Amino acid sequence: MNEFEIIRRFFSHTYRDDAVRLGIGDDAAVIAPSPGQELVIAVDTMNKGRHFFADVPPVTLGHKILAVNLSDMAAMGATPRWALLAGSLEDSDADWLAAFCAGFYTLAEKYRIALVGGDTTRGATSFTLTIIGETPAGKAITRGGARVDDDIWVSGQLGDAALALAAIKKQVSLSPENIALLRQRLEIPEPRVALGLGLRDIATAALDISDGLSGDLRHILESSQVGARIELDAIPRSPILNAAFKENKTLALHCLLAGGDDYELCFTAPVSARAHIDAISQSLELPLTRIGQITADKSFHIIDENGRPLHRLPDAFDHFAHTTHA
Amino acid sequence: MNEFEIIRRFFSHTYRDDAVRLGIGDDAAVIAPSPGQELVIAVDTMNKGRHFFADVPPVTLGHKILAVNLSDMAAMGATPRWALLAGSLEDSDADWLAAFCAGFYTLAEKYRIALVGGDTTRGATSFTLTIIGETPAGKAITRGGARVDDDIWVSGQLGDAALALAAIKKQVSLSPENIALLRQRLEIPEPRVALGLGLRDIATAALDISDGLSGDLRHILESSQVGARIELDAIPRSPILNAAFKENKTLALHCLLAGGDDYELCFTAPVSARAHIDAISQSLELPLTRIGQITADKSFHIIDENGRPLHRLPDAFDHFAHTTHA
Repeated sequence: MNEFEIIRRFFSHTYRDDAVRLGIGDDAAVIAPSPGQELVIAVDTMNKGRHFFADVPPVTLGHKILAVNLSDMAAMGATPRWALLAGSLEDSDADWLAAFCAGFYTLAEKYRIALVGGDTTRGATSFTLTIIGETPAGKAITRGGARVDDDIWVSGQLGDAALALAAIKKQVSLSPENIALLRQRLEIPEPRVALGLGLRDIATAALDISDGLSGDLRHILESSQVGARIELDAIPRSPILNAAFKENKTLALHCLLAGGDDYELCFTAPVSARAHIDAISQSLELPLTRIGQITADKSFHIIDENGRPLHRLPDAFDHFAHTTHA
Repeated sequence: MNEFEIIRRFFSHTYRDDAVRLGIGDDAAVIAPSPGQELVIAVDTMNKGRHFFADVPPVTLGHKILAVNLSDMAAMGATPRWALLAGSLEDSDADWLAAFCAGFYTLAEKYRIALVGGDTTRGATSFTLTIIGETPAGKAITRGGARVDDDIWVSGQLGDAALALAAIKKQVSLSPENIALLRQRLEIPEPRVALGLGLRDIATAALDISDGLSGDLRHILESSQVGARIELDAIPRSPILNAAFKENKTLALHCLLAGGDDYELCFTAPVSARAHIDAISQSLELPLTRIGQITADKSFHIIDENGRPLHRLPDAFDHFAHTTHA
């Protein structure tokens, strides 16, 4: 297959969207933004050997490249609308591409995302997705609005994706069933889009936890010029990760606090919003957990089970310091 | 340097633009599109060893990744506004990045492009740029509007970038002065943004010649459901390429008709627009040349100097068939 055949065969499948005036097949796409809305735009790259294993099932990879970008939309409280996918491929394996597309388009259709453009080139396998969403003007949730005494919340459970990676690398021993469960969390993350939309008029700040709670929360603290006090015991985790604390506490703590790839949301909201947030949790059937408070003192403490602050917080996932999927 | 230091040091330089409500540093950027405008969006990837040599001067690479995307905006008649840059780097060489950014930002400032987002990861060196522009609703120039008897025009001169590549690969012998001249055309293409804007109400179809005239023009013919008759002698070329026809006609013809990387515009317009287009040419000090006509007969002929159609037209640059910069 040459470039044009690949595009025709795999990347011309567009969700029908009246706002798309011109889709794939010209020098650029043309879309009509909705009146009164602002555009929310993000881009994420995933490289083989860095963000995914060479033998990852392509169907999960197709899901994940879109999911991580949808997660950015969720963190902004935006409605995702349009995507552009740039892919570098080492060869043009039709079966592999078909599986990749199955994962991609299944998720795209669920959220009604129209793929409006892309670029297909030869190179080390890598995907870069640009996502464009909309919010009513002035309503995007940023990192800069957290206020003193706000609650700090997280969705779902943290650390499972990192624990999956540790298990795959044999840094911890788990049953095959548990590895399979965790691997789903690593490879098929569910973006919290509905939660982000629900939080639009409630959260004072939000982000998605892609690089680990302790590093990512710092971004909110720096942007908002505040501090935080977190209760370690309050951070939600799976029974599997809880059990891992007994085997290897350092590793388990690292997964919980600095594990990337969970794509849960961390957000702040005033105490008065607790009932509203609990109602959102129930309607979405998604656990939302208060893990601490925003403080005027600009320091960041995580308080352990003995009431003492952890001395050293694990660093965030740094795309230039580690190699995780080699 | 880690990822966050790289972003802070090199990628936080934003052209001041009141439409940018939130720039680099959150989960996504927020921009306010102009009322009454449609968005025009494209993405292009450049990979080391594929689209550029490993030893390319980084200042020219920073220019080119933006230039090829601006060229897509030009081909649509769009005003480029905002960009997102995803970069995979093998290491974090501050001098190399500083030079890359000098090339990028010089061109960005010239066209008042605000860099609003990006992603920095480790991997085989690769850059993917997403560009977003605007046109008044319904005014984007597509590939599908060419009409029978329209003139076919090209800007500038074709084939120099491909000839530069041939010279670098020692497929043709040229003086060092001529190689240096041609290399500028390959490495520092000038996007025809002002021309694209000037053609908005004149051209019936347009595209930028990134993969070679003969392949790219076919896209207009297929989209518009028409044919074309081109005069080979009319295709504008530099004196250096003209001289190369004497040494190696096959190679020179290939450069002229199938050479990628020129980033000139090819467009169609009614005969009645000739004077208007000549005036644009004069005001922009950019040669615009009529090379043939659109025909009702859906075939595509290039007529040689003896009045005979060329039997085989060179193929377009295919990103899965060749390796040009290995």
